[in-house]
Amino acid sequence: MMRQAGRYLPEYRELRADYSFRSAISTPEVATEISLQPWHRFHPDGIVLYSDILTVLEPLGLSYRIESGVGPVIDEPPMGPDDFCHRPNAVAEELAYVGDILDRLRVEVADAAALIGFVGGPFTVAAYAVEGQPSRSFMSVRRLLHTDPTAFAEMLSVIADALVELAILQVEHGADVIQLFDTHAGLLSREDYATFILPVQRRILAAIDVPTIIFARNMSGRLDQLAATGANVIGLDWTVEMASARAELGDRSVQGNLDPAVLFADPATVAERTRAIIDAAGNTGHILNLGHGVDKNTPVAGVEAFFNAVKDIDRGH
Amino acid sequence: MMRQAGRYLPEYRELRADYSFRSAISTPEVATEISLQPWHRFHPDGIVLYSDILTVLEPLGLSYRIESGVGPVIDEPPMGPDDFCHRPNAVAEELAYVGDILDRLRVEVADAAALIGFVGGPFTVAAYAVEGQPSRSFMSVRRLLHTDPTAFAEMLSVIADALVELAILQVEHGADVIQLFDTHAGLLSREDYATFILPVQRRILAAIDVPTIIFARNMSGRLDQLAATGANVIGLDWTVEMASARAELGDRSVQGNLDPAVLFADPATVAERTRAIIDAAGNTGHILNLGHGVDKNTPVAGVEAFFNAVKDIDRGH
Repeated sequence: MMRQAGRYLPEYRELRADYSFRSAISTPEVATEISLQPWHRFHPDGIVLYSDILTVLEPLGLSYRIESGVGPVIDEPPMGPDDFCHRPNAVAEELAYVGDILDRLRVEVADAAALIGFVGGPFTVAAYAVEGQPSRSFMSVRRLLHTDPTAFAEMLSVIADALVELAILQVEHGADVIQLFDTHAGLLSREDYATFILPVQRRILAAIDVPTIIFARNMSGRLDQLAATGANVIGLDWTVEMASARAELGDRSVQGNLDPAVLFADPATVAERTRAIIDAAGNTGHILNLGHGVDKNTPVAGVEAFFNAVKDIDRGH
Repeated sequence: MMRQAGRYLPEYRELRADYSFRSAISTPEVATEISLQPWHRFHPDGIVLYSDILTVLEPLGLSYRIESGVGPVIDEPPMGPDDFCHRPNAVAEELAYVGDILDRLRVEVADAAALIGFVGGPFTVAAYAVEGQPSRSFMSVRRLLHTDPTAFAEMLSVIADALVELAILQVEHGADVIQLFDTHAGLLSREDYATFILPVQRRILAAIDVPTIIFARNMSGRLDQLAATGANVIGLDWTVEMASARAELGDRSVQGNLDPAVLFADPATVAERTRAIIDAAGNTGHILNLGHGVDKNTPVAGVEAFFNAVKDIDRGH
């Protein structure tokens, strides 16, 4: 489940009362415990590393903070590639705690669950960085693309170098699969995505020696572009119809795609809508997941019904 | 052009210095002047009524205010359909100024330009109302859909009644075409869109006796659902590829779809990308437009290049 560990769980809220988000993700014992919370409750097949797609900004020389009610804020947003500083080994040194969390998770679960690592996608990391805060349109980075395409491309390339290092660090510490979350890349036109984003996503994914999953929102009309990234698994948001995605993508494995809002429904409805997705996806090459992160107000009963729907099928019900 | 009158124009910023947004849209002489500002500069074929998709909330008994840096805010968001109050004639009485603006525009331009009216779409109006403010996910209204689908459907129906009255008022005052802006309806899954939104959009569009345009963002993988609304023209956001949309939609007219971010590029690039859309759309049944509203920081030179690209083609260049 995306955002598997999170505010919808009372034990998460309790633990987080003592730690800021930034200290929770960077303190291995805390991040390990948080990563394991949903596993203890629901026993999914995979444990998602508890981290943040923007951690990579720090070794790139940009500090960010989490502002309550706003989200990640960068006080001096970069204007171009020269405002990033990519020192050799900076990722391995400054984000060593990520490897530590994965090591601890492996000790805790041995081979009972897959460890799922992730990095942000190059466009999405650039979008947050240049905008300096969350945005609906991320117009600042799109403006940069059109006013100075060379600088934009160079910026993506510098970010991609750091993302590759972070992904490799996770693989070296036992991640069984890496997700590339380029959540907002669907904000670009097909043409601009093809020109600027696709080559960089391909380069990142090609450097990863374990199976990969790509996710981007609002790509329903151009799943072929996600497939062209070379990722082993194509993440689908909930606006994609599973049956037509399978038809379009052929043998490629898919992940998704229950609307996270459905988890607010009664458990019987959650189970029914989850089973419909499993049925539409067929028997192979499908990782059941939500179509985006679970909302912080989601009732635990809804999440439970989602996991139970899969287990009932596993048990042949 | 969507959001044709707006902050990117210095004369708009100057006039708005003396009026709040709410007083500007509801004071006929001011709203008329603002509506005409882009026409005086660029002489497009159509003049877009200067108004707001949320005006309809007032005759529905919900007051809203514009908070600086946030957008429209409703202090007591409705929890269900009973929190809306739809009195007979409330729309005609409380939004009479909208008719007044259109009357004035007709006097000003006679038959030299089409008058383009608009209403918000039922989902988008409900989404702002229930959330109480702008949002990326509009999870409050999506939660209502899944916790109480009957209440959600009733709410959409009450809103739709008022939207029909507002559209008819605009037609009675000379609007040549009505746009239905259900900008955020693409947040729903295909199934929920078909169940809850499509029938209501169809009902609204069927009640309008002039040509209609529908617009929703992030519908690239399901243009058939937009076509099924019965709108005469399908608005395309910039993430849709024009050539494939034409192929998919057959004879149906389309509107769009230049990425508003492209207007930040140099004028030659703006012209080139605009011409590419015109070429892909073909010679008939295409209203050139942006794929969404123009950004407030857009250089006027970019907008000018956009309009000139069409005019050069009209002149046979």
